Amino acid sequence: MTEHSSKYTTGLSVGTANSTPLSPVSLVKRTAQAYPNAPAILFDGLTRTWRETYARCLRLAGGLRRQGIGPDSTVAVLCRNLPAAVELSYAVPMSRGVLNMINTRLDAEGIAFILDHGEAEVLFVDSGLEAVARAALEGASVSPLVIGIEDPEELFEQPCELGYEAFIDASTPVAEDDLLPQDERAALALNYTSGTTGNPKGVVYHHRGAYLNAVGNTLEWSLPQHPRYLWTLPLFHCNGWCFPWTIAAKAGLNVCLRGPTGPAILDAIEATDITHMCGAPIVLNMATTEAESRGVTLPRNIEFMTAGAAPPAAVLARAEAVGFAIIHVYGLTEVYGPCAVCAWREEWDVEPAEERARLRARQGVNYVVLEELSVRDPETLQEVPADGETMGEVMFRGNVVMSGYLKNPDATSAAFAGGHFRSGDLGVRHPDGHVELKDRSKDIIITGGENVSSIEVEGVLYKHPAVAEAAVVAAPDDKWGETPVAFVERKPGVEADASELIAFCRERLAHFKCPTRVEFTELPKTVTGKIQKFELRRLVS
Amino acid sequence: MTEHSSKYTTGLSVGTANSTPLSPVSLVKRTAQAYPNAPAILFDGLTRTWRETYARCLRLAGGLRRQGIGPDSTVAVLCRNLPAAVELSYAVPMSRGVLNMINTRLDAEGIAFILDHGEAEVLFVDSGLEAVARAALEGASVSPLVIGIEDPEELFEQPCELGYEAFIDASTPVAEDDLLPQDERAALALNYTSGTTGNPKGVVYHHRGAYLNAVGNTLEWSLPQHPRYLWTLPLFHCNGWCFPWTIAAKAGLNVCLRGPTGPAILDAIEATDITHMCGAPIVLNMATTEAESRGVTLPRNIEFMTAGAAPPAAVLARAEAVGFAIIHVYGLTEVYGPCAVCAWREEWDVEPAEERARLRARQGVNYVVLEELSVRDPETLQEVPADGETMGEVMFRGNVVMSGYLKNPDATSAAFAGGHFRSGDLGVRHPDGHVELKDRSKDIIITGGENVSSIEVEGVLYKHPAVAEAAVVAAPDDKWGETPVAFVERKPGVEADASELIAFCRERLAHFKCPTRVEFTELPKTVTGKIQKFELRRLVS
Repeated sequence: MTEHSSKYTTGLSVGTANSTPLSPVSLVKRTAQAYPNAPAILFDGLTRTWRETYARCLRLAGGLRRQGIGPDSTVAVLCRNLPAAVELSYAVPMSRGVLNMINTRLDAEGIAFILDHGEAEVLFVDSGLEAVARAALEGASVSPLVIGIEDPEELFEQPCELGYEAFIDASTPVAEDDLLPQDERAALALNYTSGTTGNPKGVVYHHRGAYLNAVGNTLEWSLPQHPRYLWTLPLFHCNGWCFPWTIAAKAGLNVCLRGPTGPAILDAIEATDITHMCGAPIVLNMATTEAESRGVTLPRNIEFMTAGAAPPAAVLARAEAVGFAIIHVYGLTEVYGPCAVCAWREEWDVEPAEERARLRARQGVNYVVLEELSVRDPETLQEVPADGETMGEVMFRGNVVMSGYLKNPDATSAAFAGGHFRSGDLGVRHPDGHVELKDRSKDIIITGGENVSSIEVEGVLYKHPAVAEAAVVAAPDDKWGETPVAFVERKPGVEADASELIAFCRERLAHFKCPTRVEFTELPKTVTGKIQKFELRRLVS
Repeated sequence: MTEHSSKYTTGLSVGTANSTPLSPVSLVKRTAQAYPNAPAILFDGLTRTWRETYARCLRLAGGLRRQGIGPDSTVAVLCRNLPAAVELSYAVPMSRGVLNMINTRLDAEGIAFILDHGEAEVLFVDSGLEAVARAALEGASVSPLVIGIEDPEELFEQPCELGYEAFIDASTPVAEDDLLPQDERAALALNYTSGTTGNPKGVVYHHRGAYLNAVGNTLEWSLPQHPRYLWTLPLFHCNGWCFPWTIAAKAGLNVCLRGPTGPAILDAIEATDITHMCGAPIVLNMATTEAESRGVTLPRNIEFMTAGAAPPAAVLARAEAVGFAIIHVYGLTEVYGPCAVCAWREEWDVEPAEERARLRARQGVNYVVLEELSVRDPETLQEVPADGETMGEVMFRGNVVMSGYLKNPDATSAAFAGGHFRSGDLGVRHPDGHVELKDRSKDIIITGGENVSSIEVEGVLYKHPAVAEAAVVAAPDDKWGETPVAFVERKPGVEADASELIAFCRERLAHFKCPTRVEFTELPKTVTGKIQKFELRRLVS
C-alpha cells in the first residue's frame, strides 16, 4: 500500500469550463436551442414555439433588469394559468429576480400582506383579477410597478399604464451568456404557505433545488419526450410543483387553461391530445365526472399525478375506467411540491384489488432527488420502527428542501431543528419501507391520554352509505381533555342520524376513538378542496 | 420601488436538512429502498435483487474502508462486464475511494503504467484476465492488495490469496448514513484516455458530474422505469458512459456479458427481453449481422445508443430492419462519455430518406445536463458562424466536464485554456444549430496551405463499390507540406486499383483533396473498432 498523496485534491480545476450553477434557466435555453420549432405554449388556439417563447422570455428578463430587478428583488405575479404565468416562470429567474406567484383565490387583504412581506417591486396582474388586485394595492404599503396581462375574454376596466405585451416589445433581451445566477443556491422563488393559522410564511426556493425537482418529476413519471401537459394545477402551487421547468426539460407543450373546470378539462383533452396533467383529487374527480356525463372514454390513457391524500378507491376506479392512469405523490410547499411518491412495485400487481388500493393510497418513498424521507420521534429524532403502527413525524432531508422562511429566522430554525425538515405531518413506516400519513400533528385528537387519528375515524365514516364527506376534529372536553367530533355532509337522498353514525363507528373502532357528537353541515374548504379543519375547530372550541 | 434589503441572503439556512452532496451513491441507495425486490444484476442465470446488490456493496465498501481506502485512494478494477464490475461501480464510490476501471484489452505494460500512475492501493482482477494481470503486477512499482474475481467458466490457475466473495463475506457493511462524500466535487473515478500519442492521461470525474450525467442519460433516452439493459459497452469506457448509475436511477436490470460477440448479444436478447443497450457502431453491426444470419427480427424494438462516428446509412437501415431503434450520441472520456446527442426534430420526419440519414449522422446538441456545446476558433475563441461550413474546434462547458488530468496540471491547463474544454475535435455548426464533426484536429491534412478533412475524403472512398474500409492520413510532402494518402481494405471479390480510386475521388472532390497514393492493407484498429490513424501515419512518415 502506498502512502497517501493528495493527488485527487491538488492540480485539478474548478472553473468556467467544468462548473456551472444548476438552474432551471438552463433547461429552457437548451430546449429552445435543441427543439426550436416544437410547440411550447398553447392557449385559445394560439401556439408559440420554444424559440418564440425563449425570445419573449429573454426580453421580459431584460425589461425586468432594466427596472432594477436583481438577486434581492421580488417579482410578484397574480395570474391564472395563462401563457404569461408560464413565461414568467422562465423569465423572472432569467432576470435573477425572485418569482412570487400569488394564490389567485386570496382576498385583497391576503394579497396585500404578501406584497408587503415579500417587498414586491413589480406586480404582474391578470385582467381577470383586476378588482382584487386593485383593492390589494390600495391596502398594501409597497407600490410595485404594475404590469397588466390582458385576457382577451376579460379586458381591464381601467386600462393599465403598462401592458405585458408592450413591456415585452419595449425591452432589450438579456444576453444569452448572462442568464445564470452567480450561485446555484441563489433565491429563485417565494411561495407563501396557506397560513391556516396565523400569517402565511414565505418559503424560499433556490435554483439548485428547482432544477433538481424539475428533473425529479421526469424521473418519477418516466416522462417521454414532448409531453403535452395540461395546466390543471395552479401555477401558484409550489410553482406548479416545478412543472414549468419539468416541461422545459422534456421539450413539452404547456397547454394553458383559465380554470380547471370539468368541461374545460375535457374540451382541452379532446382538442389537444393531452398526455399528462396534475392536480388535487378533486380535479381528478371533476374530470372523471365530466367524462362520464359526456359518455366518453379518453382517446388515450392520460397520466394524472395527484398529491396529498389519495383519492378514495371508488374515485380511482371510476377515473381509471374513463382512461386516467394515476400516480400518487406527496409533498408540501417547503419541499418544492411533491418529493415523495407511491412507487409501485411489480410484485403488487398480483394482490387483490382491495389490497392494491390500500398500497397505492400510501405516500410512499422519497423522490430520487430527495435524499431522505423518514418518520421520527419528534423529541428524540429516532426513526420509528417500520411496523406500520408506531406514529412519528414525517421528516425530509435533501436538496429539494427550502432554504427557509423569508424574514422569519425563528420559524426557519424551528422547521430545521435537529437537522431535518419537520413537516408537521404524522405517519408510520410500513415493513416494506413505505410511509403512510396518519394526520397533521395539529389534527391529532388526544382523549383520555390516548392519541386518536382523525383520518382513521374519517375512514370509517366514509364507509357508511349516507356519508359524502366527513371531517373529525378535537373538541375540548372537561373529562377527557379532548373528544372527537364529526362533521358530515350526507349524500342526497340517503338518511342517517347522529346516533346511527356513532353506533356504526363503535362497531368498527375502539370506543375511545368514536365521535361523541356528529354535526351535519357543508364542510368549509380551501381553494384546492382541502377541508379547513381549523374552521371546524372554531365551531366546537 | 422599495430599497433593496438583503432579505434573500440573510436568515436563510444551508444545513443537513436542505443540502446534500450530489452523488450516484444516492441513486443506488434509493432504488434499493424503493424497489428492493426488483432485479438488479443478471448473469449466467443468477439474478440478484437491488436489496441484495445494495447489501453486498455496503459490505464491499466497508471492507475497502477497513483496508484504508478513502478520498485519496485509487481502487483499480481489471474485469470484463461481470457482475463484480457493476457492483464495484456502486461500492467503490460508497467507500469514498476512487474507481479506476482499466481497459481489459491493454497489454501488461499499459496496465502497469496505469497502476503506477494512479497509485492503485487495491486491484480487483477477473480470473479471465489472470495472465496479463500477473505480468502487469510484476512490471509495476506499486503493490496493491489483489482481490480475485473468479469466473466459474475460467478459474484462476494460481488461486488468489483473497477472493472477491470471501472479501465480501468477511467485511462489515458501511453505515447507511455514512455513504456520501463530504463534497460533491470529490473524486469519484479515474479513467485513462487511450493514449494514441504518448502516455495515457488519467481523467478525474467527481460525484456531482457522474450524478448529473447518469440523470442526463435518462433524460436524453426518456428511459422507462425498470429498463433491462444489456452490458455490451465496456464498463471501462467512461464508467460505461455512467450507465451503472443511470440504471440504478431507473431501478433497471444490469444484464452482464463476458464479451459483446454477436451470438452472445443475440442469446441475451432472446433469453432476457432486453430493452436497451449501448455500444460502438461495430457492436451494432455485429448484433445486426447475427440477427440476419439467424433470420430473426427482434421480439420488440430495442433501443440502441451508439456514439462517435454515426454508423453508415446502410448499416442503420439493416439495424432498423431487424428491430433496433438508434440514438446517436457523442462525447469523450473527458466529458463523462456522451454529453451531446443528435436530438431528433419531429419536422425532420417528412424529409427524404437520404436527408434523414444526413441529419441523424450529426453529433447534434448538448445534453440537457451539459451547459454548452460550441464550435470555436481555437485562437480567438469566437464561435464560428452557423453556416455548416466554417470549421472550428468543438468545445464543452458544464458540470459534466472532468475535474482535470491526474497529476498533470500542464495538460489540465491546456485542456481548459480560455474557459472551455477543448476537445481536439474539429467540426461545424449547421444553420439549425446542430454540430457536426469533421475531424480530429490531428487528422486534418494541410496541403498547399489548404485544410483537407480526412473524413470528407474517406466519405467519397466509401462510395466506391470496392471499398470495405478506408482511412486517409497526411504524409509529409516536399512540395505541398502534406499530401493525402489513403489506406483501403477492399471488399472480397471486388477489384479496383489505386489509379481507379484516385480517379474516382477526382471526379467528386477538389483535386487538392484527393489521395496521391492508395495502399491496400488491413487497417489497424483499437479495441473498440476505431481505426488507429497514428499507426498509418507511422507508415508514411
